[in-house]
Amino acid sequence: MGFFSKDIQSMDDLFVHTLRDIYYAEKRILKALPDMIGKASSDSLRQAFETHLKETEGHVTRLEEVFRMHGAQAKTVTCPAIDGIIEEAQEIAGEVADAEVMDAALAAAAQAVEHYEITRYGTLIAWAKRLGRNDCAGVLQRTLEEEKAADAKLTALAQAHLNMRAAE
Amino acid sequence: MGFFSKDIQSMDDLFVHTLRDIYYAEKRILKALPDMIGKASSDSLRQAFETHLKETEGHVTRLEEVFRMHGAQAKTVTCPAIDGIIEEAQEIAGEVADAEVMDAALAAAAQAVEHYEITRYGTLIAWAKRLGRNDCAGVLQRTLEEEKAADAKLTALAQAHLNMRAAE
Repeated sequence: MGFFSKDIQSMDDLFVHTLRDIYYAEKRILKALPDMIGKASSDSLRQAFETHLKETEGHVTRLEEVFRMHGAQAKTVTCPAIDGIIEEAQEIAGEVADAEVMDAALAAAAQAVEHYEITRYGTLIAWAKRLGRNDCAGVLQRTLEEEKAADAKLTALAQAHLNMRAAE
Repeated sequence: MGFFSKDIQSMDDLFVHTLRDIYYAEKRILKALPDMIGKASSDSLRQAFETHLKETEGHVTRLEEVFRMHGAQAKTVTCPAIDGIIEEAQEIAGEVADAEVMDAALAAAAQAVEHYEITRYGTLIAWAKRLGRNDCAGVLQRTLEEEKAADAKLTALAQAHLNMRAAE
């Protein structure tokens, strides 16, 4: 979450700080996805990444909406977790030679990204509700549903197609 | 996953490499949990962390069992993702002043750890099955169930207790 100050005194501070953490993460993912699309060999995996790139643009816009609703400045804080997860994904792209094994590795890396987002949005929704911000929770919930659907799609792809072919 | 070589040519290589990634992660979590236990104020959160510390010791042992079953050397590869996730958790411990807000932040950080493990074990189980290693998949599945249960417990704690008190 990049807690570099002692400014986090209340649940409201923690909520805003974590919004800024996931705002950083979504923007980081936007930058990473085109490279993953370029590295993917399977049409279905590439299409899944392309769909998620468009969804991610919408998630950034929704976060800006939540910042406005909550009267907080839309800015990022460095998120070491997403940096580490994406660093792993980029290492795969450079270090795996076989195209189909790389697809399997890319799909797994993307699922690690999805799970980070799922846990953070789940937390933010719970905190928003506790803070009486059901309006913010509702906007965040729409993104959470898309992240869960993206993860489920990758699971189905990985199990039904990529791994089966890579293990031949 | 720490892919620092070009040795990953096959699904089997990728499976073993990812086993080593989560082996590193579990050992990293073992080292981080005592500090999180020390920082937690709520008895129920501390107990949840203590229970998970014992479970994590079992997860390390199970991974060593899977390495043996699969005839691979039990060793670690650096996992930037878990390093980043734990770095965030440690930043919280140092930067949040209020005890109850810190409990909420610690629980959220622990859930990010759980979700990383859930996605990696899910991937490993799928790959083990594709490689015809249902025996390995079965052992890994037991750990996955415990990770999911730990995450669910933290969700219940965070929603029912910590956040409600912190938002008062």
